[in-house]
Amino acid sequence: MTSHHQTVSGHIIAIGGAEDKTSDLAILRRVFELAPKDSDEVVIIATASSIPEQLLPCYEAVFARLGASQIHALDIQDRRQAADAENVQLIQRSGVIFFTGGDQLRLTNVLGGSAALRAIRKRLKAGAVVAGTSAGAAAMPSTMIYNGAAADALRKGAVNMSFGLDFIRGMVIDSHFLERGRFTRLMEVGASNPEQLGVGIGEDAAVIIHPNRILETIGTGHVIIIDSRDLASSNIAELSIGEPVAVENMILHAMVSGHGYDIDARRYLSADELSDLLSERTT
Amino acid sequence: MTSHHQTVSGHIIAIGGAEDKTSDLAILRRVFELAPKDSDEVVIIATASSIPEQLLPCYEAVFARLGASQIHALDIQDRRQAADAENVQLIQRSGVIFFTGGDQLRLTNVLGGSAALRAIRKRLKAGAVVAGTSAGAAAMPSTMIYNGAAADALRKGAVNMSFGLDFIRGMVIDSHFLERGRFTRLMEVGASNPEQLGVGIGEDAAVIIHPNRILETIGTGHVIIIDSRDLASSNIAELSIGEPVAVENMILHAMVSGHGYDIDARRYLSADELSDLLSERTT
Repeated sequence: MTSHHQTVSGHIIAIGGAEDKTSDLAILRRVFELAPKDSDEVVIIATASSIPEQLLPCYEAVFARLGASQIHALDIQDRRQAADAENVQLIQRSGVIFFTGGDQLRLTNVLGGSAALRAIRKRLKAGAVVAGTSAGAAAMPSTMIYNGAAADALRKGAVNMSFGLDFIRGMVIDSHFLERGRFTRLMEVGASNPEQLGVGIGEDAAVIIHPNRILETIGTGHVIIIDSRDLASSNIAELSIGEPVAVENMILHAMVSGHGYDIDARRYLSADELSDLLSERTT
Repeated sequence: MTSHHQTVSGHIIAIGGAEDKTSDLAILRRVFELAPKDSDEVVIIATASSIPEQLLPCYEAVFARLGASQIHALDIQDRRQAADAENVQLIQRSGVIFFTGGDQLRLTNVLGGSAALRAIRKRLKAGAVVAGTSAGAAAMPSTMIYNGAAADALRKGAVNMSFGLDFIRGMVIDSHFLERGRFTRLMEVGASNPEQLGVGIGEDAAVIIHPNRILETIGTGHVIIIDSRDLASSNIAELSIGEPVAVENMILHAMVSGHGYDIDARRYLSADELSDLLSERTT
């Protein structure tokens, strides 16, 4: 499960939605700065969105302002386009691959098993940044949440999940987390399998997943961690669909910009510990 | 702080709001059943509400259906009425004191320091049930939350708190908890003082606080416990108002009907453990 550690050299950035696109660009600037030396070209994938024509100009303007030499808004609305050789080629030459928000099920339905997705995974291994906001963040793990009303999520079966884009393993990612009060969604997931870390990202907040599987929080919002590994008990397996789920002993953290988390050690990192761990890596 | 244990013989029931009032009445039936032997009269206090005339007939019908011999809808809209001798007398003869929902700050503002409130506390000590829903539950502890948008609550100062009605100590109670995604409110409170237990009650769910300070969950919804006593770190004291609060290591439980919690031992109780503990008390 942690083979990611050995084989990936690029950074993943999962953004909770509503990131600043017009002011300081703190999060998107960091996305661009993590581009590898071999390419500062950016591809933007708005496949998740039903209104790509409204989102794309905004992101194109952001990455132009940040200094990208070329910006490619990929036209991938269906599976035929996800197999298109020209789209694959644009991915192969780019250092930043950015997924907009929308519906994560559109992302996986259109990109799953495609040449475009294989090319993105290859670029991530080779050092490119893969970033996504909202649905684009939620789709990143091997298993994703795609639906489930927060108000009623702690009932068996209320959270809809499926296979994600498989850029990262061992976690589930939820977005707009504090703003939409989605704690119950990650609690249901944690009860269903305590091995998986719950990462809830607030608006204008993001986690950088470093190649050594250290999370770094950036932005003005919060990143919530729900760690179920020490779950003491839950009734989930005995319930019928719709019945309320009990959980005993999940661990909760709230991280702010500069704080971090070690995914595999399940350890909260203060700003000092995080910078030590990240500088170790580069020395 | 735990002197409550020695001195109170009545039960407190805190309800998360929207409890069933027309079907099985599971929660309100339990409220009535816990009335002491010396009185099955009920007082209903709608002071929190701006529309008491709309709430009172409904609760009067419920308690009539449950078999109360007399039901007194107290007319306490201002401090003069909270000092009224007739209202005090109706409290003194009742076995169940029920607070409707509304605005908890109206409850404390009108009742704080009043003869009516002193009479209620005395009845609780002597064995009466004190129950409340929504605002009527939130106002019960020595310190209460009365405002704070959940979406933005994990920022210093975002949760407004004040003195409550002081029926129970050592905890803060929040209502409509899962439905309004209020986890962040209890996290901010826990960061500000980890000694205090966070009790978040969902709709059509309630906790019975037994005289031995054991919580029992009833109803169809959830009761969430946020236990901050092992908080490892938080930046809250260093922040300016409005800045995001970090917290490391809070413990999270979700209880369903039949499950319990030992307030002072900070221990989750399975259905078996709970019934053992509650039967010990009566033997």
